[in-house]
Amino acid sequence: MSDTLTRLAQVLEERKGAAPDSSYVASLYHKGLNKILEKVGEESVETILAAKDAQQSGDCSDLIYETADLWFHSLVMLASLGQHPQAVLDELDRRFGLSGHDEKAARALTK
Amino acid sequence: MSDTLTRLAQVLEERKGAAPDSSYVASLYHKGLNKILEKVGEESVETILAAKDAQQSGDCSDLIYETADLWFHSLVMLASLGQHPQAVLDELDRRFGLSGHDEKAARALTK
Amino acid sequence: MSDTLTRLAQVLEERKGAAPDSSYVASLYHKGLNKILEKVGEESVETILAAKDAQQSGDCSDLIYETADLWFHSLVMLASLGQHPQAVLDELDRRFGLSGHDEKAARALTK
Amino acid sequence: MSDTLTRLAQVLEERKGAAPDSSYVASLYHKGLNKILEKVGEESVETILAAKDAQQSGDCSDLIYETADLWFHSLVMLASLGQHPQAVLDELDRRFGLSGHDEKAARALTK
Repeated sequence: MSDTLTRLAQVLEERKGAAPDSSYVASLYHKGLNKILEKVGEESVETILAAKDAQQSGDCSDLIYETADLWFHSLVMLASLGQHPQAVLDELDRRFGLSGHDEKAARALTK
Repeated sequence: MSDTLTRLAQVLEERKGAAPDSSYVASLYHKGLNKILEKVGEESVETILAAKDAQQSGDCSDLIYETADLWFHSLVMLASLGQHPQAVLDELDRRFGLSGHDEKAARALTK
Repeated sequence: MSDTLTRLAQVLEERKGAAPDSSYVASLYHKGLNKILEKVGEESVETILAAKDAQQSGDCSDLIYETADLWFHSLVMLASLGQHPQAVLDELDRRFGLSGHDEKAARALTK
Repeated sequence: MSDTLTRLAQVLEERKGAAPDSSYVASLYHKGLNKILEKVGEESVETILAAKDAQQSGDCSDLIYETADLWFHSLVMLASLGQHPQAVLDELDRRFGLSGHDEKAARALTK
């Protein structure tokens, strides 16, 4: 798993400073944070709709595709604010490593 | 990175069938897909608000926390529909491995 | 106020059955409920971003514009499911007319 | 229709400055804009889920209820930023009154 997210974070870092029309990510950076956040919002709604349709049809291919879009755009958001996905994974690790995978306790501690 | 997502997927799988009041995740499964999707939606909005605030303040700690919440609940969504996060990472890998990290081409192919 | 929403509901009703390329609304109907709901989601995120920006800048013109987009697409959603906005206003009226504008009581009753 | 929105805007205006525990709206004002916007986001997702369920079941009662929640919290958002719903209705009127209800032209002008 690590290869994919690490490599994606590297790609997103390399795209910074590139010409706006050189790639989709470069165009997003150029349009600014609001545009990136609009995409995060759009993809979360498309993911939710895909999940509802998957529940009906039993076909999860769209759900996987839309979740990939959601994660991808959240990685672009992190990169645009100078953050690395490892910080998010560390936060998840912190919650779930606290007491033998007791996520209930972890939630309680962080809310 | 892989350890975190793999371990989380395992935890989420183990929670299936547990008593609703035994953990936060077990209670989410019990409440059903709509409740899980409401959480995905809520956390995406909280992530978006945290990103706007981070841009103003320069402090990204809330952003990391909310993104962890968003990814976590999207993992619960996947688990509740019988999907593993590896499928999402494979999809991201497929897009970005096609032509030497050319995500623009990858996007064009999948839209 | 009533004229605007009543008239809009009439326009949206009249667009049903029109050729998909005859108007924006006709094209939305043709694309189906998921596309309409994606627009509701997009416009809610754009409204939220506009509200954050308005708080910083003091300029609410984008906020008004985006809220109009949000309400408009929620009217399209209602129309596509055979519902009239009056039903929503009746629900609001019911909550706030119960005990002399006591919305707290109204919320408590409906949650 | 006008009575409902006008009356609601008056109620929301009157709640300003009230003790946080005096009503649901007063507590929202006290918690601040982010909390209000979180509610707008939550209610938009609940509306989207209710619309999907209504399409399956044919029962639109939840959809009407959730749309009322969405409109209500967007009214709280407007009030908290000093705006009146009439400005949103004027914007809708402006778009749809331009050329005899031709919303396609109106959209083209404002995009």
